[in-house]
Amino acid sequence: MASSTLNEPAGPSIKTEVPGPRGAAAQRKLDVVLDARTVNIVCDYESSHGNYLVDVDGNTYLDAYSQIASIPVGYNNPRLRAAATSEEMISSMINRPATGFFPRQDYAQILEQGVLKVAPPGMPHVWMATSGSDANEGAYKAAFIWYRRRKTWTDEENKSCMLNQSPGSPNLAILSFGSGFHGRGFASLSTTRTKVTHKMDIPAFNWPQAQFPKLKYPLEQFKEENRKEELRSLEEVKKILDSWHCPVAALVVEPIQSEGGDNHASPDFFRGLQEITKKRGMAFIVDEVQTGVGATGKFWGHEHWALSSPPDIVTFSKKFQAAGYYFSDPEFRPEVPLRLFNTWLGDPCRAILAKAIVEEIEANNLIKLAEEVGGYLMGKLRDLAKAAPESFGNLRGQGTIIAWDLSSTEQRNKVVSALRGRGVIVGTSGDVAIRVRPMLVFEKKHADILLSALEEVIKAEGKVSNAAARL
Amino acid sequence: MASSTLNEPAGPSIKTEVPGPRGAAAQRKLDVVLDARTVNIVCDYESSHGNYLVDVDGNTYLDAYSQIASIPVGYNNPRLRAAATSEEMISSMINRPATGFFPRQDYAQILEQGVLKVAPPGMPHVWMATSGSDANEGAYKAAFIWYRRRKTWTDEENKSCMLNQSPGSPNLAILSFGSGFHGRGFASLSTTRTKVTHKMDIPAFNWPQAQFPKLKYPLEQFKEENRKEELRSLEEVKKILDSWHCPVAALVVEPIQSEGGDNHASPDFFRGLQEITKKRGMAFIVDEVQTGVGATGKFWGHEHWALSSPPDIVTFSKKFQAAGYYFSDPEFRPEVPLRLFNTWLGDPCRAILAKAIVEEIEANNLIKLAEEVGGYLMGKLRDLAKAAPESFGNLRGQGTIIAWDLSSTEQRNKVVSALRGRGVIVGTSGDVAIRVRPMLVFEKKHADILLSALEEVIKAEGKVSNAAARL
Repeated sequence: MASSTLNEPAGPSIKTEVPGPRGAAAQRKLDVVLDARTVNIVCDYESSHGNYLVDVDGNTYLDAYSQIASIPVGYNNPRLRAAATSEEMISSMINRPATGFFPRQDYAQILEQGVLKVAPPGMPHVWMATSGSDANEGAYKAAFIWYRRRKTWTDEENKSCMLNQSPGSPNLAILSFGSGFHGRGFASLSTTRTKVTHKMDIPAFNWPQAQFPKLKYPLEQFKEENRKEELRSLEEVKKILDSWHCPVAALVVEPIQSEGGDNHASPDFFRGLQEITKKRGMAFIVDEVQTGVGATGKFWGHEHWALSSPPDIVTFSKKFQAAGYYFSDPEFRPEVPLRLFNTWLGDPCRAILAKAIVEEIEANNLIKLAEEVGGYLMGKLRDLAKAAPESFGNLRGQGTIIAWDLSSTEQRNKVVSALRGRGVIVGTSGDVAIRVRPMLVFEKKHADILLSALEEVIKAEGKVSNAAARL
Repeated sequence: MASSTLNEPAGPSIKTEVPGPRGAAAQRKLDVVLDARTVNIVCDYESSHGNYLVDVDGNTYLDAYSQIASIPVGYNNPRLRAAATSEEMISSMINRPATGFFPRQDYAQILEQGVLKVAPPGMPHVWMATSGSDANEGAYKAAFIWYRRRKTWTDEENKSCMLNQSPGSPNLAILSFGSGFHGRGFASLSTTRTKVTHKMDIPAFNWPQAQFPKLKYPLEQFKEENRKEELRSLEEVKKILDSWHCPVAALVVEPIQSEGGDNHASPDFFRGLQEITKKRGMAFIVDEVQTGVGATGKFWGHEHWALSSPPDIVTFSKKFQAAGYYFSDPEFRPEVPLRLFNTWLGDPCRAILAKAIVEEIEANNLIKLAEEVGGYLMGKLRDLAKAAPESFGNLRGQGTIIAWDLSSTEQRNKVVSALRGRGVIVGTSGDVAIRVRPMLVFEKKHADILLSALEEVIKAEGKVSNAAARL
């Protein structure tokens, strides 16, 4: 048993309604000072351990959602605790540097022993942001500057950019995919295409979207149809790029569309995308905010593609416990300094934590574990799907990033809620999918608990459906 | 002597060239993994105390720039250290919550005892971001949603917003001022108007700028001229708002333009701006990222204006040690939840630190100190300016936010560099200004050290100028 799961309870235990009376009261209190209408569970983090989250009413949940795919190595992980109480952490917390001007003396070392240790080959440069959205927007800025790479500018450019006008502020675009999610800043939201509530009323850049391939699952069963669908999508991308009202400087894509429905595509598709960007002198940006840091069974989701050369930029965040980063080819460093800059340029505290996360992953071989447990869970889910296909539509997964569809949004939400009532937390993705996003310390025994709860819920739902049918 | 300055050295001490050999080597090492061309000083934060920053070569500086106006209560402040080692901090660091869904049980309390304790009257709601830029962009989104406040949308709006097209993605603008700085995200950069290097090559929204009043200093000597200039600016604002190609949903302004030249305006001007926004149903956003948290001698810069009603939104960040926040009228909470949302919704670690910062400020009456020391420093600088007016052009200040102009960018940079060689760090603002941005624990004795160093530099520069004149 790894130290990360040492203090775990034997299983979930639900003592009250969810939310319980204390949770409901805490939510009401919070709602006075901020918008707490979205709150699901008010948590007692100090009592939570490993894969188990405890709420303020004393209920214990198996957490297979991990704070929206973010907790990497379990709650109250001892190695992370050691990092959090280290002198370098305390000092970085109370003496936060404006890193671009006044960095810590050990900053290069923290990065080298942390995120850079797991950098994809050919991407030795790192840029640190404060969130996944911020990492994507930094990547977009780097791509625009790279696309127009010049050291000097004309008077007209100098004047016009101060007025937000072309040619200084150029008409340049980023292409993204329908149902892709890349964040909620103004530029990242312009590339996000998941929900009306995200985008409505917010001014957006006139940037193009292509339809992401709509594949049939299981993938191995529909190889030929899926190949055609991916070729269709690649052709659409080319057509858009060659006819858009302005040059498209970059293309951004998730290895798995992880918010907009858990949509997969094949390595061939992604290799095709990279080829398209190369031929057109565009940047190929891979958004690994949700797929990065091991969940797919490899450290980076794009490692599954066997690309002939690295992506230009890879953005990431969640499982490194926020902050945000991108790796890039050194070519994406602007020729003139101070152009990609801000006061903080990241947060050394989070870089120190990332170092401990890398150490914990390596010490316990957690990427391998994610691959194994993901495979185990998928196998068992396939069995469940055979018995109750209507409850497991389009079952799909890579590593522990697993999802399936229900017949409607209402039905999906009912299952998620019923699971929660049995002490198991999973998330939703797109309109009708349930998404499983466990931590990297999720073992077969945890998978079994999730599976049992699912079986119970399906049985109970079956009764509900039958009861409804009798009416 | 307050505990925050307890371990301070007696004064600056410079032992090597700046940067010294270790600093230069550390910068070269850092430049391999990220863009370190902007680095000024590589720091030994663990050896830094109170107002004194120590570098990796053992040089000790009096820091009157404070990590770009950000360190609030001194390096290695004991109360902040206690907060950084508290159980709530450790837990928040290693169990970072997706706050919108799964908040900490004590989150309301942390905010109430921290940032909300110092909220301006009439602004009981807080939104937490990850940086000043992010706080401004959150505020802009809130303003756009508020401006179009509706609960339901048409089919056309639903479809068009997913394509980044009007009417769903509306043509709406934010007005900002020339030489204003509001951050470097895509929307915040569209309102930033300071430097070509910030804006060049980055797509921008077609949003308007008005010219900030160009006042003459000292303000009390040019009251009538300045009043006319401010009226001119207010008229320009009205003209732009009434003729812009699209509705302008909000106006954003800094109490002192703190990056674009330290430009001041009178309370009358700001009251005039608020009146303009009220008449037009726009949001009045005050960007206090640099002026907030006491530096002006009041907790918030806008408290100097005696507004008849609170601003709609006040954004802030730096002196609360990053993260970012805005306070707002409850009216700015969207009618539909999940519209202003992201995975983290801030960072409880920084909210816990903010609580300690508020406690330290209150326990030591540090706002009062900033007012007093600012007044003392301004008085002494006026004396220096009388003796050497060409070295202290347009001396201006409020609290400890103080600046003056040199004759050229080159001359300004020479003085900043000469001060640094004497162990005193100040910053630059706009093209020709030196900006002083000490911490709130900056006392008269520290001001005296800054003043002595300035006198020495001016004398030495005088010799240089005389020498040059003789050629």
